[in-house]
Amino acid sequence: MTDTKITLPESEIPTHFYNIAADLPTPLAPPLHPATREVVGPDALAPLFPSGLIAQEMASDRWIEIPDQVREIYRLYRPSPVFRARAFEEALDTPARIYYKSEHVSPVGSHKLNTAIMQAWMNKQEGVKRLATETGAGQWGSALACASKLVGLECMVYMVRVSYDQKPYRRVMMKTYGADVVASPSTLTEAGRSALAANPDSPGSLGLAISEAVEDAAGRDDTKYALGSVLNHVLLHQTIIGQEARKQMELAGDYPDILIGCHGGGSNFAGLVFPFLADKVSGARKNLRAIAVEPRSCPSLTAGKREYDFGDAVGLTPLLMMHTLGHTFMPAPVHAGGLRYHGSAPLVSHVLDAGLIEAEAYDQAEVFASAVAFARSEGTIPAPESAHAIHATVRHALAAREAGTSPVILFNLSGHGIFDLAAYDSFLSGRINGK
Amino acid sequence: MTDTKITLPESEIPTHFYNIAADLPTPLAPPLHPATREVVGPDALAPLFPSGLIAQEMASDRWIEIPDQVREIYRLYRPSPVFRARAFEEALDTPARIYYKSEHVSPVGSHKLNTAIMQAWMNKQEGVKRLATETGAGQWGSALACASKLVGLECMVYMVRVSYDQKPYRRVMMKTYGADVVASPSTLTEAGRSALAANPDSPGSLGLAISEAVEDAAGRDDTKYALGSVLNHVLLHQTIIGQEARKQMELAGDYPDILIGCHGGGSNFAGLVFPFLADKVSGARKNLRAIAVEPRSCPSLTAGKREYDFGDAVGLTPLLMMHTLGHTFMPAPVHAGGLRYHGSAPLVSHVLDAGLIEAEAYDQAEVFASAVAFARSEGTIPAPESAHAIHATVRHALAAREAGTSPVILFNLSGHGIFDLAAYDSFLSGRINGK
Repeated sequence: MTDTKITLPESEIPTHFYNIAADLPTPLAPPLHPATREVVGPDALAPLFPSGLIAQEMASDRWIEIPDQVREIYRLYRPSPVFRARAFEEALDTPARIYYKSEHVSPVGSHKLNTAIMQAWMNKQEGVKRLATETGAGQWGSALACASKLVGLECMVYMVRVSYDQKPYRRVMMKTYGADVVASPSTLTEAGRSALAANPDSPGSLGLAISEAVEDAAGRDDTKYALGSVLNHVLLHQTIIGQEARKQMELAGDYPDILIGCHGGGSNFAGLVFPFLADKVSGARKNLRAIAVEPRSCPSLTAGKREYDFGDAVGLTPLLMMHTLGHTFMPAPVHAGGLRYHGSAPLVSHVLDAGLIEAEAYDQAEVFASAVAFARSEGTIPAPESAHAIHATVRHALAAREAGTSPVILFNLSGHGIFDLAAYDSFLSGRINGK
Repeated sequence: MTDTKITLPESEIPTHFYNIAADLPTPLAPPLHPATREVVGPDALAPLFPSGLIAQEMASDRWIEIPDQVREIYRLYRPSPVFRARAFEEALDTPARIYYKSEHVSPVGSHKLNTAIMQAWMNKQEGVKRLATETGAGQWGSALACASKLVGLECMVYMVRVSYDQKPYRRVMMKTYGADVVASPSTLTEAGRSALAANPDSPGSLGLAISEAVEDAAGRDDTKYALGSVLNHVLLHQTIIGQEARKQMELAGDYPDILIGCHGGGSNFAGLVFPFLADKVSGARKNLRAIAVEPRSCPSLTAGKREYDFGDAVGLTPLLMMHTLGHTFMPAPVHAGGLRYHGSAPLVSHVLDAGLIEAEAYDQAEVFASAVAFARSEGTIPAPESAHAIHATVRHALAAREAGTSPVILFNLSGHGIFDLAAYDSFLSGRINGK
């Protein structure tokens, strides 16, 4: 019997984040001020983020050290295992060798905790007392609530009203971690009060919740803002995923031919892929394929344009150069809430344009069918977001059988689906069709 | 930095189950036929269980081999880590060294999968096509549904109506694994139809659901019945927990002074404790304490009598010699559904009477307070059942500070609480008081 899980000791928790900005063939386009369209400097971000994170956002060093105290907290769940998906391979009857990095093992159930811990710690170091953020479905809010408590910060989460009402368990999880959670629009901010004045029954939106959190943080000396994806420093923190996976694939005696991650804002995809992509940039692994997988209903990479656009829905943030469907784009209500973002991280957009990665889009019915097949082979029920990576894996594994090849596929299982069983119920009851 | 997680390679998955029956100071009282009160032989159990499991139920060998194919499936999540709870120790300001075995890492979120896999595999070996079982809150049903799919059996779950309606996510999880799930009472059995005739709106009960599953299994040649706790063979399978933990404590350079597990039917407690208890029986570790923790509302060990009683609520099963509150006892509706059982496993009852273990009972409000403190230190939100073990750990850790001692405490984190966030909501909103 060979091992199913490829594990690493805690001493192999990465000591540095990998900054792909140092290895890009062309430099990244900088963010612009929304009004003046001039390049945004560190000062413009200071009301919202601590200086240590702003420095990481703009850093050009290849390696950025991870503080010992942060690595200490990572020990709660890292290194995460890489699984060889033998049972899934058998179920698919494929000659492909399929591996998955299991980020769902974190206490909050997803990779989001990786950056939440680093962000909370840096804020704590700089004397911040309290973090404000927004959350839609609740993944990011749960991660930041947990990380804030672990480092000793207060946490304020503006949760989109419709999720607040329909997804009470994520809200309870955040409160269990000691966070304050309010439905957005709330009466706590100007933005919230205006929205409520216009419509007392407003269901809220992610854009509005961002406005509330940003207003909260900008208006209080003791509070900063935290974001769960898109920005350079967030993707940077997630590179511990791919660094661990590289070592684990070495232990398995395999190197991936195809890397696959689902894509919403881009952080779990970048986290897995960027540390391998250095090999493609250097020419050592010219044929390495890296595939970002998005829902057909929100196809920023496969159908969006690369241009300067706002990061949020209402136009408050700096302009970012990214693949976007337009910041007013309203994706159809798919169950993979974490993939419902109009744009893509500037770094992911950049490497897509540079031809270093590919993108694919799938319908949710086929995605859920693959998710159920995975659960029935491997036991773990995947998050609907991660299920997009699983479905792409299925497609490439079956194509390999047709082609008579046996590629090594590594995908990122970014989260479990225990909070998403209502979506599985819809699928199993035949209420999910097409997109 | 020292490691937070004490891990073992897959090669250290135990090769044998440990059968404490071989080491008991006095022999276990046998089960009796409910009508004749004569000792029940293997034949009486044959309509319900495969012969391999009946043999394990009655075995007197100290070590019982685990089939290679079963160990292969265990690789999906075993060996499970032992955590050193440093952050929790700090939060409690205790000189105690606290460790926990983490059975919540299984794909279904609890230790129940350990026996479900072994039971499903043995049934499959003997040509059974389909398993029938009951489930209350859904932990056991989820585990058997998953295990059945992994080995290739059909699975039929009779889920107590009130849980079926109030806990839809567990039901969806079972269906995701391909199981058939019906609300009990159902129209599929005589027992169900009679109950519905008497009361079409019957909320059901665990006793009635057992009757339905037993009737289903007894009436079909292709189907057997499976039980998730109480019986000897179920406790036997769980001893892989304690065997792994022994090796892990050795690696940590510590031997537990106090072992703690929550107690409902007795399987997670026995699983952790029995492999250590051999040292107490032999005299090598005379002072080892092992504490079973139950809810004050269902105190079978601390307030029940040891006598022959039925294993189920309606009086269908053989009579078992156990600590019991009487098979008609109706526990108050506490949130730790898995601990709402009127009796205790015969083996646990036996070692309690032999003075080898102790029992403690706590109120649920204090239990939830400890659970929240744990989540805020260690990240993981515990199941309300496991929170009983955590609360006892807190009590003994604080007592150690008072006494100026520094005991080594090892408890079993038998499951996570992601399906139980409604109960946390009740607690955080002040709706849980007293018992």
